[in-house]
Amino acid sequence: MRYTSAAIEALIDAFAKLPGVGRKTARRLAMHVLQQPRLEAERLASALLDAKDLVVRCSICQNVTDRDADPCRICTGQGRDQSVICVVESPVDVLAFEKTAHYKGLYHVLHGVISPLDGIGPDDINIRELLQRLQPEKGGEVREIVLALNPTVEGETTSLYLSRLIAPLGIMVTKIARGIPVGAELEFIDEATLSRAMEGRTTF
Amino acid sequence: MRYTSAAIEALIDAFAKLPGVGRKTARRLAMHVLQQPRLEAERLASALLDAKDLVVRCSICQNVTDRDADPCRICTGQGRDQSVICVVESPVDVLAFEKTAHYKGLYHVLHGVISPLDGIGPDDINIRELLQRLQPEKGGEVREIVLALNPTVEGETTSLYLSRLIAPLGIMVTKIARGIPVGAELEFIDEATLSRAMEGRTTF
Repeated sequence: MRYTSAAIEALIDAFAKLPGVGRKTARRLAMHVLQQPRLEAERLASALLDAKDLVVRCSICQNVTDRDADPCRICTGQGRDQSVICVVESPVDVLAFEKTAHYKGLYHVLHGVISPLDGIGPDDINIRELLQRLQPEKGGEVREIVLALNPTVEGETTSLYLSRLIAPLGIMVTKIARGIPVGAELEFIDEATLSRAMEGRTTF
Repeated sequence: MRYTSAAIEALIDAFAKLPGVGRKTARRLAMHVLQQPRLEAERLASALLDAKDLVVRCSICQNVTDRDADPCRICTGQGRDQSVICVVESPVDVLAFEKTAHYKGLYHVLHGVISPLDGIGPDDINIRELLQRLQPEKGGEVREIVLALNPTVEGETTSLYLSRLIAPLGIMVTKIARGIPVGAELEFIDEATLSRAMEGRTTF
């Protein structure tokens, strides 16, 4: 069953293409847009195009940044420890770490992980750009690479690949700890996480 | 904590204004837009503006329709029973009935219900337009008004108001049945619905 308006149908179709948005939600969003002043629709429309037009990847860390702020604010930030680079899969991961306000080093965003099944090889993600940052002529400042990829098969594979690539350069390669999340009860933790937690135990 | 891009922040803010979309979902949607080709963003952007520019209310039933299809497809539809008008709150309700492919009459969309607490009186919703359709000089074709407003306090109030307004015109006023949804188990039905179901019992 279709609406009595082709324009509404087109809007529902466009909304439904967004991740996690089904037909029902798309319909609700479309009706909301119809009820709002035109200014609100304009704001979303121009934000969409601006995001495509103004956002580039930082020439150093490959994180997303504005066209007029390259290198990005983190790469050029005062008080950032230039000797540590945390390697992540995507820009949202950078945000997650920044929210902790705990980590003060730099980042490198791979924009993906090695996934042979999806046809994604080492050359398809930003590994080359990472290696360039580690060249001695760059000042040789980097002492440590922290691998913080997601604990999926692809993430682990990529971590292994990177560690083998970087270790010979004489740079320390670490990975973030896997274990019990803060506040979680042991009873409800899956076996894989529990095993990792036991494996990674530290002295008290 | 903010992203390293003002354009992304603006997009997240715009998405987060949509109903049911929180900051986290908005962030996910924004990242999705960044990863998609520009064409997809353009499609959503222009669909948004088209919906505001091309969609009008049908001059007869007040349902949403395209500017170039007024009166709407239902009002002008062949095989529609012109003697019955189903009164609903919003365009989504029309869609819900149309999906049943069972009802063949016309609709009238109030675009709201009477709600004194929100400052919405009878003149703020499309009641006047409904009464105009019932004027004898319009052919006097309408024999029945089916009230299908949501079973909220405001919906019930509006139904009562409409029935008192329309009954004197010699037109039958009915309301859709409240009762046990098809497929539901009695055990899990709330008391109000059960009472209504008992009240509205019919002969077998």
